[in-house]
Amino acid sequence: MNSLAQALLNPRRIALIGASADEGRLTARPQRYLRRHGYTGELFPVNPRAETVLGERAFASIDDIPGAIDFAYILLGTDNVEAQVAACARRGIPLACVLADGFAEAGPEGAALQARVLAAAKAGSMRLLGPNSMGVVNANARTALTTNAALEAETLPAGRVALISQSGSMMGALLSRGAARGLGFSHLIGTGNEADLTAGEIASLALDDPDVDVVCLFLEAIRAPEQMAAAAAKSHRLGKPIVALKLGRSPFGAELANSHTGALAGSDAAADAFFRAHGILRVTMLEALLELPLLVAGRRPAAQVHRGVGVMTTTGGGGALAVDALGVLGIEAKKPDAVASAKLEAAKLPHHARLLDMTLAGTRPDRVMAGLDALRSAEDTDLALVVVGSSAQFRPKDAVGGVVEAAKIPGKPIAAFLAPQAEASLRMLAEAGIAAFRTPEGAADAIRAFCDWRAPAAVPDLAAPAVTLPAAPDEADARALFATLGLTSDSQVMQEEPPTGLRYPVALKILSPDLAHKTEVGGVALHIADAAALREAATAMRARVAAAAPTARLTGMLVQTMAKGLAEAILGFRRDPEVGPVVLLGAGGVLSELHRDIALRLAPVGLAEAHAMIGEVRAMKPLTGWRNLPKGDVEALAKAIVAVSALAAVPEVTEAEINPLIIGRPGEGVTVADAWVVRA
Amino acid sequence: MNSLAQALLNPRRIALIGASADEGRLTARPQRYLRRHGYTGELFPVNPRAETVLGERAFASIDDIPGAIDFAYILLGTDNVEAQVAACARRGIPLACVLADGFAEAGPEGAALQARVLAAAKAGSMRLLGPNSMGVVNANARTALTTNAALEAETLPAGRVALISQSGSMMGALLSRGAARGLGFSHLIGTGNEADLTAGEIASLALDDPDVDVVCLFLEAIRAPEQMAAAAAKSHRLGKPIVALKLGRSPFGAELANSHTGALAGSDAAADAFFRAHGILRVTMLEALLELPLLVAGRRPAAQVHRGVGVMTTTGGGGALAVDALGVLGIEAKKPDAVASAKLEAAKLPHHARLLDMTLAGTRPDRVMAGLDALRSAEDTDLALVVVGSSAQFRPKDAVGGVVEAAKIPGKPIAAFLAPQAEASLRMLAEAGIAAFRTPEGAADAIRAFCDWRAPAAVPDLAAPAVTLPAAPDEADARALFATLGLTSDSQVMQEEPPTGLRYPVALKILSPDLAHKTEVGGVALHIADAAALREAATAMRARVAAAAPTARLTGMLVQTMAKGLAEAILGFRRDPEVGPVVLLGAGGVLSELHRDIALRLAPVGLAEAHAMIGEVRAMKPLTGWRNLPKGDVEALAKAIVAVSALAAVPEVTEAEINPLIIGRPGEGVTVADAWVVRA
Repeated sequence: MNSLAQALLNPRRIALIGASADEGRLTARPQRYLRRHGYTGELFPVNPRAETVLGERAFASIDDIPGAIDFAYILLGTDNVEAQVAACARRGIPLACVLADGFAEAGPEGAALQARVLAAAKAGSMRLLGPNSMGVVNANARTALTTNAALEAETLPAGRVALISQSGSMMGALLSRGAARGLGFSHLIGTGNEADLTAGEIASLALDDPDVDVVCLFLEAIRAPEQMAAAAAKSHRLGKPIVALKLGRSPFGAELANSHTGALAGSDAAADAFFRAHGILRVTMLEALLELPLLVAGRRPAAQVHRGVGVMTTTGGGGALAVDALGVLGIEAKKPDAVASAKLEAAKLPHHARLLDMTLAGTRPDRVMAGLDALRSAEDTDLALVVVGSSAQFRPKDAVGGVVEAAKIPGKPIAAFLAPQAEASLRMLAEAGIAAFRTPEGAADAIRAFCDWRAPAAVPDLAAPAVTLPAAPDEADARALFATLGLTSDSQVMQEEPPTGLRYPVALKILSPDLAHKTEVGGVALHIADAAALREAATAMRARVAAAAPTARLTGMLVQTMAKGLAEAILGFRRDPEVGPVVLLGAGGVLSELHRDIALRLAPVGLAEAHAMIGEVRAMKPLTGWRNLPKGDVEALAKAIVAVSALAAVPEVTEAEINPLIIGRPGEGVTVADAWVVRA
Repeated sequence: MNSLAQALLNPRRIALIGASADEGRLTARPQRYLRRHGYTGELFPVNPRAETVLGERAFASIDDIPGAIDFAYILLGTDNVEAQVAACARRGIPLACVLADGFAEAGPEGAALQARVLAAAKAGSMRLLGPNSMGVVNANARTALTTNAALEAETLPAGRVALISQSGSMMGALLSRGAARGLGFSHLIGTGNEADLTAGEIASLALDDPDVDVVCLFLEAIRAPEQMAAAAAKSHRLGKPIVALKLGRSPFGAELANSHTGALAGSDAAADAFFRAHGILRVTMLEALLELPLLVAGRRPAAQVHRGVGVMTTTGGGGALAVDALGVLGIEAKKPDAVASAKLEAAKLPHHARLLDMTLAGTRPDRVMAGLDALRSAEDTDLALVVVGSSAQFRPKDAVGGVVEAAKIPGKPIAAFLAPQAEASLRMLAEAGIAAFRTPEGAADAIRAFCDWRAPAAVPDLAAPAVTLPAAPDEADARALFATLGLTSDSQVMQEEPPTGLRYPVALKILSPDLAHKTEVGGVALHIADAAALREAATAMRARVAAAAPTARLTGMLVQTMAKGLAEAILGFRRDPEVGPVVLLGAGGVLSELHRDIALRLAPVGLAEAHAMIGEVRAMKPLTGWRNLPKGDVEALAKAIVAVSALAAVPEVTEAEINPLIIGRPGEGVTVADAWVVRA
């Protein structure tokens, strides 16, 4: 373990700067909690106004403490932070954590202060946790180095899951929810504003810890995608999964995440693409964040996923609830296949239904084990789910004993959903390392995340396109850009006279870097039959545009053959504020926006991923021959997606879009009907 | 209370037929539970093989019991049920309940047995609960007349919510989940197969009970929609809401519901339409079923709904979680409006943000009351949500005391979400009648149901159309049917010679009651320019169809003007197996099926509801002038929906559909391009 990891994850000499001698104060909590939960390292309260703090010798300043310090927790108000960080950095402390808020999340002044604080830390090569951090808990080492009130609890259960949370209060909420049902954590770390140390970098450190099997993330924003991606890659190397819950699934949530953390929110579709590409399991429900880790601990993504579950139950209604919740998310409770049926038949268990109902067979361990062995043997499922009824409440051993035994045998994961309130059964299952769910919806959310889980995709090695963009690109420049990528269209630039060699009928469009919406200023004319009509249309257009947009720079006109095809698509590239370059394929046409029918990936993508994107866009389905509709040139479309995704390597392109891209029949290729680009 | 209501909801003289003298047996449970929880009425165990059962005098048969019996619970196996039901009916008992399964849910033989059992009951004017019923609990009267193991609990908390469940095990699961957090029930009733008494009829009885404020339903199927509708109407008359969770949101869940209950599953969209039309609040999450009742108890649907919530929080991350979960369901956490802002400013509370963050103001009751008063005063919200952080765990009184006080003041509902595990706070809130949620997703689901809640719509009084259908209707008959409804199209039937008065170009289609898919047999020809071409096309078509479908009855050919319009729709009518007649509007065209872009209502509908349906179909949005696209004849479309919905009054029509219906510009009306009908 390097010194940063040790300082962060298992500090043995801690300074509490601003530790209060008043037990009731927030700033007294770290010392109280460390002592309450049995911290065995050394503590140094820093408080110039007291000889002792809560019965321990206090120091007037950080400089008065003898020997090396691993971790300084600065508990003082916002105004005092900069000086203390500087003092700690001078002192050679490897890591300081700042509790105060009022930094980047509070506006420009706070952001400037945060920058100064960070600079002060860097001056001494000191790393910084926070600001706005609730600190660090290491349950194995009894290090309750936090202000979080959840540590008022008498016990601090340890586990093998490290929780890294941008929200301090949710860190406490998850600790308390876990404790109530036997789920402990190895570490809980509040990252706050992540001025320096980000959730991604901390996840990397935690993954190296032998006490950690799974890393859980509660995120409001993805701060440093490259660090998060590195952590994800390490997680797959080590076989230690990362599970994340990220806010911002709705625009209101994204706005709040932004105002809480001072980060710019990207799109949720981009965040989702990021998690999938890097093999991070994303849950959408709070309880699933707590419950999924046991399902994936020690596991790797399956090579083949069936989106199928074998379900055993002792409650018809509860089993049906679980099956329904799974089905809503597109996961099927499968009837036993041939292999499973044979085993069930041999064990004299029912084997014809979607639910293996154990009501008659009972929950004797050998019966449950036989049933689960059969369900786990099915070749078309990803895991087995046990739904337990009222016995879980009053006879936990009878109810889940068989499940605990079955889980000792290697095989597909076993998960449980307990229909009644059944804390003892939850605890028994947790102790046996079996993921147990309180709600059918939480179970379904976690199982969906498990089925979506893939090993990180290799980033395709695409050559960077040789692009040159003028300072203020117009549509012709955008077309030139896409032509560089191999996406051409039958168009020419016209100044005064119609160009030769046109294939009529044509469309005519005004060119200007200033006119994003050409139609609104009369800058588009369609179905022009010949050169004479084109000349006339051009004259009329110049007059219209000059009247409607007198200040716009006009750089010419574009003439293009009226393109016809089977379907229209939107193909776009942009840089998401959180996760970076992404490529997007969507349905074209007026209804596309209404149907929200898109596929999005981190850019660049390879050909296989491009085909997967086409498969996700509902409006593209006819192109693959659905319902005997005419097939389209899906191959050309996939190549176009790959080509556009290569813009990731062209920093001067911020956004670029073809809308519509016309898709022809097989062999006819794709045609750029309209395009635009935004330069950095 | 009528005698059935008394027998069902508060029986005072109970016979337990087949009560076991072995404490460990399932059939001993009702007696054990009744005694354990303090039943004060009279009990009569019926067991011919014992003098006494669990210390009480046993009777050899039901006929040996002196005096009247309110309720006979038949605990015997499937084979003995028929004889015992007959005996009870002869004895003049008003109500018998059957525990055994193996009836309609088990296949045709079981269904026949169930029919005989029902007939035996009816012969004595006796009502039947079940079969496959876990019985009845009345917590106020300490009547634990059930085999459900949840009654092993030491206590049986009483409340003012009656739970009616088709699943016996979920009845127990909900009882145990409620008990753990201070939520009790007035009654718990397992309805099982509902051979006679349905959830709807029982809900009606429960609504009349002065101990009941809210009725909760756990449903696998809607058995008798007219009874459920009557209960819903009563619930609105009395101001006692009905909250339902119904399985079958996924096809797998629907299949299971079917196999559990022996009922035919309808579509989930139809069930949803049923609940909305009748003003039943539908939740989709298990915990929301438990938690929503307190939010709606004593309330009626608001006249105007904003889909807006005012959110107060003491935890930034927890508040953001709740806002995000609401946003995903289309409900906005609103910034304080002018009224709320003024009140917040006067109380020196922050008033600019989407979250009213009380971290600095603290949770002193007067501060919380001032904040909630302001949020409830906003004119653009439906309720206030309080999100409570770690204080809920260790200082419940401090954390929720202010909320409890605020809720005593009349106004919009107040709901709470507790971020940590906080049983004491949950209990305090429950005791104060405040809906408190354990998860942000459950809170959002319940609040969404609340925002969707409407008073039952008046059923429009439409004249029954005068329809005559031949035994085997073809497309011309379907068109004639729709013409009766005022939906005409420019078409004529042709036998040999082209009809006169056609407007060319036309389309030609084969007519046959046997050919649902005309295109596949070469039975459709389009863009026919004149009479000569029509004659030629007809000859060719006759030959093609004769070759492709030699046995089909051919009833002529249909000639219709090629219709053009702005958009295509599907307009359909059918009878849902669960809820009855429904009318459906969907997008037309090849992609309609992929986008699942439909609106569905119980039929008949009035004009306002028809317009609401048009507003729900995304593909119809351009017709209303969205993005300056040409407007369509929305008025004519709405009238068409109303007209088609009137088929509800024509029993011989099972299904009827226009696909596509061509929608013209305003004033141009709608045109039937293709149609079919299925006769009962």
